[in-house]
Amino acid sequence: MALKALNFRLIFRVLGLVLIFEGLFLGLNLIACLVYDHSTIAPILKSLLITSVTGILLYYSSHYHSQKEIAKKDGFITVTLSWLAISLFGTLPYLISGGIPRFTDAFFESVSGFTTTGSSILANIEGLPRGILFWRSLTHWIGGMGIIMLMLAVFPFFKIGGMHLFNSEYSTASFERLKPKLIDTAKRLWMVYVLLTLAEIIMLCLGGMELFDSICHSFGTIATGGFSPKNTSLINYSPYIHYVVTVFMMLSGINFTLHYFWLTGVHKKLFQNEEFRYYLLIILVAGGLITLLLMGTNYSFEASFRHSFFQVVSIITSTGFSTDDYLIWPASAAAIIFFLMFVGGCAGSTSGGIKVVRHVISAKRMMQVFKNLAYPQTINKLFYNKNALEPGHVNSVMNFVFVYLLTFFAGFILLVIFGTDFATSAGSVATTLGGIGPGFGLTGPMGNFSMIPEAGKYLLCATMLLGRLELFTIYVLFSPGFWKS
Amino acid sequence: MALKALNFRLIFRVLGLVLIFEGLFLGLNLIACLVYDHSTIAPILKSLLITSVTGILLYYSSHYHSQKEIAKKDGFITVTLSWLAISLFGTLPYLISGGIPRFTDAFFESVSGFTTTGSSILANIEGLPRGILFWRSLTHWIGGMGIIMLMLAVFPFFKIGGMHLFNSEYSTASFERLKPKLIDTAKRLWMVYVLLTLAEIIMLCLGGMELFDSICHSFGTIATGGFSPKNTSLINYSPYIHYVVTVFMMLSGINFTLHYFWLTGVHKKLFQNEEFRYYLLIILVAGGLITLLLMGTNYSFEASFRHSFFQVVSIITSTGFSTDDYLIWPASAAAIIFFLMFVGGCAGSTSGGIKVVRHVISAKRMMQVFKNLAYPQTINKLFYNKNALEPGHVNSVMNFVFVYLLTFFAGFILLVIFGTDFATSAGSVATTLGGIGPGFGLTGPMGNFSMIPEAGKYLLCATMLLGRLELFTIYVLFSPGFWKS
Repeated sequence: MALKALNFRLIFRVLGLVLIFEGLFLGLNLIACLVYDHSTIAPILKSLLITSVTGILLYYSSHYHSQKEIAKKDGFITVTLSWLAISLFGTLPYLISGGIPRFTDAFFESVSGFTTTGSSILANIEGLPRGILFWRSLTHWIGGMGIIMLMLAVFPFFKIGGMHLFNSEYSTASFERLKPKLIDTAKRLWMVYVLLTLAEIIMLCLGGMELFDSICHSFGTIATGGFSPKNTSLINYSPYIHYVVTVFMMLSGINFTLHYFWLTGVHKKLFQNEEFRYYLLIILVAGGLITLLLMGTNYSFEASFRHSFFQVVSIITSTGFSTDDYLIWPASAAAIIFFLMFVGGCAGSTSGGIKVVRHVISAKRMMQVFKNLAYPQTINKLFYNKNALEPGHVNSVMNFVFVYLLTFFAGFILLVIFGTDFATSAGSVATTLGGIGPGFGLTGPMGNFSMIPEAGKYLLCATMLLGRLELFTIYVLFSPGFWKS
Repeated sequence: MALKALNFRLIFRVLGLVLIFEGLFLGLNLIACLVYDHSTIAPILKSLLITSVTGILLYYSSHYHSQKEIAKKDGFITVTLSWLAISLFGTLPYLISGGIPRFTDAFFESVSGFTTTGSSILANIEGLPRGILFWRSLTHWIGGMGIIMLMLAVFPFFKIGGMHLFNSEYSTASFERLKPKLIDTAKRLWMVYVLLTLAEIIMLCLGGMELFDSICHSFGTIATGGFSPKNTSLINYSPYIHYVVTVFMMLSGINFTLHYFWLTGVHKKLFQNEEFRYYLLIILVAGGLITLLLMGTNYSFEASFRHSFFQVVSIITSTGFSTDDYLIWPASAAAIIFFLMFVGGCAGSTSGGIKVVRHVISAKRMMQVFKNLAYPQTINKLFYNKNALEPGHVNSVMNFVFVYLLTFFAGFILLVIFGTDFATSAGSVATTLGGIGPGFGLTGPMGNFSMIPEAGKYLLCATMLLGRLELFTIYVLFSPGFWKS
């Protein structure tokens, strides 16, 4: 009865499209195999065929009438299933090539890729053939594109966590009516995405990084993913490379609509944006503090400055590349890094986590609450980007942050129950929920997730997906009454 | 200019009263010294004189006109300063007797006593003379009485964290008008408090516990404090004693107005109370789970049952006594204990933490949010104890839980910055903020807080006071504009 009410036609059709889309990217991967690594042509081709044929079958199994209004309910299910399906089929290259033979590990790596997290179960990354390393980085890039579409078109329509506030033009009109405009905007933002990627590839090559590594690192940067084809991430590269990646990570953490405005010559929009200003402020303060802390050890000023700002930007944008191991830094520096795991970049970027705008609105709300406690008569409106916020919108934001913290707590306690120590549990859940990559304890920048117990790996897949899909998209599926027709 | 606006007359008068009140209890302590320990008569007498004379001077330094309306602003300052002053003068017996010679440690122990936390910096508790051990337990009992008054009369008036919901009769009328009724209710609840304490002393003596230890443990139980005059808390006592203390801890975690109704023959009120039902449910589920986990080790069924329920009740009511070391239990059991540190007992009891009612209301609100995401047209009212809740009240509750979690995070990160490991930091901040006692790592049930760095001890004094005064009472003093006239 309940399932009858679902719009299966729509769901199958979208899932089919997603897999066809994934098949096209496997085709792109095939080119990389032809250039760099003939040994993986066969496994990638097999993966491509399985994925595309399943996609085409799903797509043509139903005749979807686009005139029909899309129900929110179907939207939540479709988005969750799409992310699951693309991750599931994304395991094929790992499994068929034998690069990652166990399903749990391949699934973890695939979810980590498509959610642009960058946590890895691989102890020896360089042991994988290049054709598979390329796919690993490409999953980030696909995930980043997907997220831009979700941010732009789907989340504002879901109205979760105040998302509709950040692209206000879409908040009132219905999805169907906006379709042509959305496709237009999507094209523009993807153009920005591709341009940024190309620019980084060129800049990295100019610094002497091999083209293959430049492409993989650029995929990892612009998607704020963090998979590196190297065992030690960016540690062994030159300061020039460190600075270039820092700049591109920082750019990738900014709202992509602001990039578009900037590229079309509307420069003032950037600094008028309150979220961007706070984003810069947090980076400067945290980076400055850690620079001072590192200078207190045996690092030179330049090295302190470089490693500090690289790591701060890498964590706040939820990328997760490393130029140094923050677990051997002074405890205060490591504590700041842990704290930054809960910040996140700007809304409308590929970054994960709570995001700066929500912190700004929450902080303003708490200031108001404290003010009203002492002076109950003064009721002031909250402003964001010079617009007054409705109380309902502020509550959406507060609820999001609240549920985010509860999810962290629940995940942390579950991981301890599964037999992981406190630091590893707290770090692993914080980093996967925020879509970052490296954690604390066993899962630090020089560690990996291979030692996490089986159940813990699936738990972290869940936190990665929850974080990426802004929590509510998935939680709503478990809410009372959702499956009633 | 700003300070002129404060009602200094009122503040001095209340502080004076608080110290005179503390002096009276030091007089009671003198009786214990005469019976048990003549060596501490002199230091207690000196403390009594210093405290009382300061109190009397403060009281008579100002002529307060009770007709004048009390401003909320003065209320927040008075409550915070009272708790600070009583803790500060409470260090005198420790310092003058030389039992705890360092000020930081004496202040930590005193704040831990009056906030009914029960965290200790003492490595060898039994090394203290009995006159001082009595004072240590008495500070709990004084703090518990103080908290009942705050819960009843002051917090509903402050309207913080939805506190006015739990004693609804006081929510609308002004403080001044309710004064006679409040004093009457306070007397009744203090009667319940004294009766419970006497009943436990008798029950413990019947089980063969020495009178001195029975009194100290009863002070620690009814105030949900947790200081024991023994180095190993209740570990070396009989199962009978363990069961008696479990029952009295559980009773002390219940809203005291429900006790009053029960004692006056109105029995149905207890089970009609939604918070009480959830309180029981959480104890049964957590206790049952840990019983099963302990049975999987080498504990007998009886021992598993006894230790499990003792520890669960001890943590949820924020008492903090121990019959066993949960750090050597299976990791899952320890994780449940950590989780319970964020639960707290019932509002209107002496217990600390977030409290069950706020969890119930938050959970209902989150259910509603999820429901509305999928079905935006259905707007349902939230009910608590069969009454509809106003959205503003629900927001108060949510804000409280939110600020509580943020305070935990900030404290945790600061303690790591001060050089404490992850587990010790997380456990210490959770246990002091919740007013519980034992933490994790170094500060576990068999450990103590002596190894926490100096700055960390003051930080934990702050989290104890913040937790006890329901956060906002103190935070509001730092809010923008509070000190403006």
